[in-house]
Amino acid sequence: MEIDYKNIKVIGFDADDTLWVNETYFRDAETKFGQLLSEYETPNKLEQELFKKEIENLELYGYGVKAFTLSMVEAALELSNYNVKPKTIEAVLNIGKTMLNEPVELLDGVEEVLKTLSKKYKLILATKGDLLDQERKLEKSGLTKYFHHIEVLSEKKEENYSKLLNHLDIKPSEFLMIGNSLKSDVLPLVNLKAKAIHVPFHTTWAHEQVTENETNGKQYQTINSLTDLLNILG
Amino acid sequence: MEIDYKNIKVIGFDADDTLWVNETYFRDAETKFGQLLSEYETPNKLEQELFKKEIENLELYGYGVKAFTLSMVEAALELSNYNVKPKTIEAVLNIGKTMLNEPVELLDGVEEVLKTLSKKYKLILATKGDLLDQERKLEKSGLTKYFHHIEVLSEKKEENYSKLLNHLDIKPSEFLMIGNSLKSDVLPLVNLKAKAIHVPFHTTWAHEQVTENETNGKQYQTINSLTDLLNILG
Repeated sequence: MEIDYKNIKVIGFDADDTLWVNETYFRDAETKFGQLLSEYETPNKLEQELFKKEIENLELYGYGVKAFTLSMVEAALELSNYNVKPKTIEAVLNIGKTMLNEPVELLDGVEEVLKTLSKKYKLILATKGDLLDQERKLEKSGLTKYFHHIEVLSEKKEENYSKLLNHLDIKPSEFLMIGNSLKSDVLPLVNLKAKAIHVPFHTTWAHEQVTENETNGKQYQTINSLTDLLNILG
Repeated sequence: MEIDYKNIKVIGFDADDTLWVNETYFRDAETKFGQLLSEYETPNKLEQELFKKEIENLELYGYGVKAFTLSMVEAALELSNYNVKPKTIEAVLNIGKTMLNEPVELLDGVEEVLKTLSKKYKLILATKGDLLDQERKLEKSGLTKYFHHIEVLSEKKEENYSKLLNHLDIKPSEFLMIGNSLKSDVLPLVNLKAKAIHVPFHTTWAHEQVTENETNGKQYQTINSLTDLLNILG
């Protein structure tokens, strides 16, 4: 069945791994974390336990690099059985600082797509994570001029998107969300009768993965590259 | 000179130390931090160095409990000359976790004021800090129903308030900001020709303090308690 986008007024773009590379930096950070603590556990065990710690702290800390760094410090203490050296803790803090200072690497065709679509639609950036970090990345990206504003959501769940639509004062059918995460950018919107387009990134964080059951019978389109949007909406 | 509030359409409330107690928890945290590291330095030196570390990291980490916790860990490493014990680092992380779990203690008259003003004005919560933490506090406070939405600003400077006014689609003269910080809640608004009312809290973070020079000749009202708003705007 053809999906009809003719009522769309506002397009929300996810940022991390939709407009620019992000997950890659987290994977690199996990590798560095594993190297720093390699005397205590196998890389596999270290990675698993760090992931557990992140999930354990998710409700309290939320998403983003600062939350991730705090979880790394806590995991380093526990995985070393409280034998970790202070200099190693410092190196862990520096993994986080390096992540916050990474350059922004745009994905293919992003600027062209935003430039074209911003002439016809109101574009917003809808992201979870850390406001300061996302603002900094948007600034570095040079894409600020295409967006009406940034919406940072503490969670990307139906109720958060509902509030966003209220706040934008539009009907669900007038909103299209575009992003790399089925769980965060696509399914909640489809469930709200808004539109969503999935643009997969090559790496997906375990916490964002969904089962086939969750996507069964849901109406959304998947594209290979953001530039496909120009054919669909252009 | 009498200040005229008759054009006001939207009122922005600062949250921390305006609606509920916050700075007190940071002061308590600093005291606990000092106790944990008392073998290395005097309490005074520890407090000063922690403050320096926070300011050093402000651009990278921003505001809020997670940023503060990361700065405490870093300060603990350095102030102990890398002799701090892993269990002490864990205790530092737990200071942060305790802060995130603190109950919300409303200041005097807050609910009555918001209830009354929400009938006549659109109220928004305008805060810096961490979105997740602020949402959690708003939820715990039971005040959600009085606010149209939360605006988390990465910085409370003129340009951030300008964007907020654009986004709200109102003129500066139609916006009134209420808060405990002259630097963050009052002066930027007065400079933008919007209105602001100062409600001092008994403790002000050193970073938020301003000199008399900065307030000289600025047009704003100071009140003792939020309930005074009912006379001014009611």
